[in-house]
Amino acid sequence: MVFKEKSIRVFAPATVANVACGFDVLGFALQELGDIITLTKTETQHIEISEISGAPNLSKDAKSNVVGVAVQAMLDELGSTQGLSIKIEKGVKPGSGIGSSAASSAGAVVAANRLLNAGFTEIDMIRFAMEGERLASGAAHADNVAPSILGGFTLVRSLEPLDVIRLNTPPNLFCAIVHPQIEVKTADAREVLNKNVSLKNAVIQWGNVGGLVAGLFLNDYKLIGRSMQDVIAEPLRSSLIPYFYEVKKAAIESGALGCSISGSGPSIFALCEGRKSAERSVTEMSKVFENSGIPFKVYVSGINQEGAKQL
Amino acid sequence: MVFKEKSIRVFAPATVANVACGFDVLGFALQELGDIITLTKTETQHIEISEISGAPNLSKDAKSNVVGVAVQAMLDELGSTQGLSIKIEKGVKPGSGIGSSAASSAGAVVAANRLLNAGFTEIDMIRFAMEGERLASGAAHADNVAPSILGGFTLVRSLEPLDVIRLNTPPNLFCAIVHPQIEVKTADAREVLNKNVSLKNAVIQWGNVGGLVAGLFLNDYKLIGRSMQDVIAEPLRSSLIPYFYEVKKAAIESGALGCSISGSGPSIFALCEGRKSAERSVTEMSKVFENSGIPFKVYVSGINQEGAKQL
Repeated sequence: MVFKEKSIRVFAPATVANVACGFDVLGFALQELGDIITLTKTETQHIEISEISGAPNLSKDAKSNVVGVAVQAMLDELGSTQGLSIKIEKGVKPGSGIGSSAASSAGAVVAANRLLNAGFTEIDMIRFAMEGERLASGAAHADNVAPSILGGFTLVRSLEPLDVIRLNTPPNLFCAIVHPQIEVKTADAREVLNKNVSLKNAVIQWGNVGGLVAGLFLNDYKLIGRSMQDVIAEPLRSSLIPYFYEVKKAAIESGALGCSISGSGPSIFALCEGRKSAERSVTEMSKVFENSGIPFKVYVSGINQEGAKQL
Repeated sequence: MVFKEKSIRVFAPATVANVACGFDVLGFALQELGDIITLTKTETQHIEISEISGAPNLSKDAKSNVVGVAVQAMLDELGSTQGLSIKIEKGVKPGSGIGSSAASSAGAVVAANRLLNAGFTEIDMIRFAMEGERLASGAAHADNVAPSILGGFTLVRSLEPLDVIRLNTPPNLFCAIVHPQIEVKTADAREVLNKNVSLKNAVIQWGNVGGLVAGLFLNDYKLIGRSMQDVIAEPLRSSLIPYFYEVKKAAIESGALGCSISGSGPSIFALCEGRKSAERSVTEMSKVFENSGIPFKVYVSGINQEGAKQL
């Protein structure tokens, strides 16, 4: 079916990368949160960003904004000089750690693929959106753009060659997120990691990755919870997030399956069985920041199963 | 149902541990190969090994044989001094790398649990059999005893606390094994590994562990194959196995999904879609050793789904 409109509007979900044990490989999409990207064909031969709402500090220069870079990567591969005007409605605050740049890149690429009838596969679209991630963080990682485009839980099995697997999503899984309004730069969060890890810890980590993937396919909520352990990134990155362990303790004690840092932070997420459990956890997690005086936002969300979609 | 006989005979399958990417966590059981353990109650208050066939060099001292040690661990926890006579029929040659000691330990523990109506859980039995592994290799690992007891593919998510997950087994998966008749001591195979690994390689490894587990649940044979990559142990351990990479090349070129070292070697295994594919691969893999003059044995086997069972 050929898409004949001059304009298209796409919603792309926010995402939680790493999911505790799966540093750089696992991620999932959030149901209720995300960015809206509107693409309109123009008579020019360049990409322009016409409007950004919800994030005053983002660049409107198409070469300095992830959206422009991701779409340009697609146009380059198409050999197209189609002019495009892009409107960005940010539902995800930049720097929150729930895939703000990825949602914009993913939405823009999915929109462009449809608007231009380009016919690229999902893996191609992930590849283009990764160019946005390269601009945002210096590394073309896929653990946020993959779930934003595909929906559900995704595994980036390999970056070279790019191989992304859509995992199963247990039906009653919900996510509680607390976002303290502090800045954690992705570059700093990468810097704090060690370049080498002990084989012992690596084995613990890949045992848990295997356990989490198995838990998702088995709809085994308790196994998912037991597998949400990160002995590699969390022990180091938690130093960048005040009260992290207090929040984690509150989540677990209130019944969450597991709790860790969302992506490179500062958002802290918990996975829960059932919406009520997630609401209970987010309440208890919030209390830590309430008492500390750090401003914060909270979200309770199901898992988005569709990925980026036309509105 | 109470078991009232004085004697019991149990078959426990040989196993392939690690499965390429899953060092120390993944393993599966072989259909046609294994040990048979016969336990008989005696009027003494000690364990004696009455007979060993198929492996002339194994100790008949119950304290120096994995079978005696594993059963003693169970008796100790029971607080029992029941005398037992144990007959061991080795179908798996010690030092082959396909779980010889584990098959004996697993068979003995499953037999004792039934004979004594002890009522231990599978996880308890794995724990006792691990004491046999501790004697055999100095480390109480579970990646061979778990699949020998449970059958199918297993994941040792965690050793402390012990947490073992039974994974799915795709119906048309077969295994080709070539066992060159050389000695690789488990201790040497451990010694050759680095105590630290790069975070980059660790991420590659746990991406593949996730991919392999997903491939098993999705019955996706190609994904299983793509995930059978080991950047941690195989590059180092392959130095202990002459012609390893030639054998691996022969396996892949003849259509195997993937090929790696079984456990700590020297056996080399390939996973294949269909028995015919496995037979083709084992033929091509064999040719390498035929040409080299190294004596070898070959096996083609389905995946054992039952685990250790009473005969």
